[in-house]
Amino acid sequence: MTGRGGSLSGTGLVALFVIGAVGGLIGDMCHVESGTTVYLEDPLPYLWKSQLWFPLMVGSGTVALGWIRVRLDGRVRAPERGALREGAVMIAAVVGLYALTALVRGEPQPAAIVLVYAVAAVIVARFATAPADLVCAVLAALFGVGIEIVLAAADVFMYAEDLARFAGVATWLPGLYLAYGVIAGQLALLFSSRPPD
Amino acid sequence: MTGRGGSLSGTGLVALFVIGAVGGLIGDMCHVESGTTVYLEDPLPYLWKSQLWFPLMVGSGTVALGWIRVRLDGRVRAPERGALREGAVMIAAVVGLYALTALVRGEPQPAAIVLVYAVAAVIVARFATAPADLVCAVLAALFGVGIEIVLAAADVFMYAEDLARFAGVATWLPGLYLAYGVIAGQLALLFSSRPPD
Amino acid sequence: MTGRGGSLSGTGLVALFVIGAVGGLIGDMCHVESGTTVYLEDPLPYLWKSQLWFPLMVGSGTVALGWIRVRLDGRVRAPERGALREGAVMIAAVVGLYALTALVRGEPQPAAIVLVYAVAAVIVARFATAPADLVCAVLAALFGVGIEIVLAAADVFMYAEDLARFAGVATWLPGLYLAYGVIAGQLALLFSSRPPD
Repeated sequence: MTGRGGSLSGTGLVALFVIGAVGGLIGDMCHVESGTTVYLEDPLPYLWKSQLWFPLMVGSGTVALGWIRVRLDGRVRAPERGALREGAVMIAAVVGLYALTALVRGEPQPAAIVLVYAVAAVIVARFATAPADLVCAVLAALFGVGIEIVLAAADVFMYAEDLARFAGVATWLPGLYLAYGVIAGQLALLFSSRPPD
Repeated sequence: MTGRGGSLSGTGLVALFVIGAVGGLIGDMCHVESGTTVYLEDPLPYLWKSQLWFPLMVGSGTVALGWIRVRLDGRVRAPERGALREGAVMIAAVVGLYALTALVRGEPQPAAIVLVYAVAAVIVARFATAPADLVCAVLAALFGVGIEIVLAAADVFMYAEDLARFAGVATWLPGLYLAYGVIAGQLALLFSSRPPD
Repeated sequence: MTGRGGSLSGTGLVALFVIGAVGGLIGDMCHVESGTTVYLEDPLPYLWKSQLWFPLMVGSGTVALGWIRVRLDGRVRAPERGALREGAVMIAAVVGLYALTALVRGEPQPAAIVLVYAVAAVIVARFATAPADLVCAVLAALFGVGIEIVLAAADVFMYAEDLARFAGVATWLPGLYLAYGVIAGQLALLFSSRPPD
């Protein structure tokens, strides 16, 4: 890699996995409790309201996105308000957007979709600092939405039929993944060591 | 004008018109689909869910507000996070507020009104940089709400009867226009050239 | 006290009381109108939708938290966007969160609770500038939630039975008080005079 790439310690990778897994569990609980999503098969044990594969997938995805982000462009700017506070704002923003997608289930879907994408756009534009963040956002949306489309088609789980959907998943889903991808990458930057030069 | 006034190129004016018209179409779609507003007369063709005069009015209003803002005080500060990202945050914030006004139709109206004005106040206080922004906010509210009151009285369109209303329009409407006025002016600053001194 | 403590003028204390009392009246109106809370006893006259003790309690609490915050650590940083605009953003953020807690009454409670705590976390992490802010947040939550638990147990008022509750109060209530505590302290800093050194 070029000199712009930074690196993540083992502790950083573990932190990313835990944040992703716990955030995924909280958000999935919102989706399950609101009936937004329903697990149709349960080959694995449940962890809280989720099939075990779900937090493992979100945790691993967060590690992968973070690793890619730091490799692509590891240059770290001083965060606007201290790393801890900046990280807390970023995590809370994505978890809040996740909960919002559960709350709009019974609402008029066009307005719900516009609101989710608007909040996602605020998060992306507020926290992205380099083109590498957009790479992470697009990768998260492609792989996340793609995997969910496959699993919904395989009847592993389903999105409620009263939601606006495409290919079996909620129309607002790409917005949630775009925001998540940027934050996964930015959290990794907070945990990374600076590039050599 | 004094030396504080800046200027807008033709490209900037076109960009303001397009942003206003497209944003208006998206927001109006939310209002129509949620039953918040209903067109009662359709003398012109529909564009998406809107009578053609609606996007033309919002686009023209955005150009007018932007032109006024830049003439009143064209001094540009470096935006906090790059012009493109700052513009994206501003547009997404107002479109999100627009969608929110559609989503609160069936909710308890007093709390809905407080939430809309609170979000509008955050947008105004977050993005306004000079007294000229408040001029734009007030102009947008006076003309926007005024025109809607006249058109509602003329039975061109109506706000749903289950909304809290005054003079035929939603009680939260001035809040939406105040936020829109500030953002129209600030977008114009992003597109403007600096004043001479 | 140490040299880090600042001081509040009488005007500052009055301003804090008025902001707290008026904000409390607006938020309580949202709760009463949405049926989130119901007054069961009315020994005192009503002011708008609130028993008179409520705005007095919130106003006094805001003064107390502000006084504590300034004494603990009165060092003032220049606010990011001017004191007036920063104060307006902070007040609007907490009033908006207050209104949000009224709007989520009929929604799936787990997602509603996650959204309220996520927004509260954004407010805390966005506006806190020192450990003293967390002291104020915890004090507000302990005393605010504690007093409400006692008053609910005494049947002075009640939270609606269709809310997720603990000890008679809404599960999201600590989140609202945590955000309020930080903002009460930060508003006091805006009104305070700098410490001597």
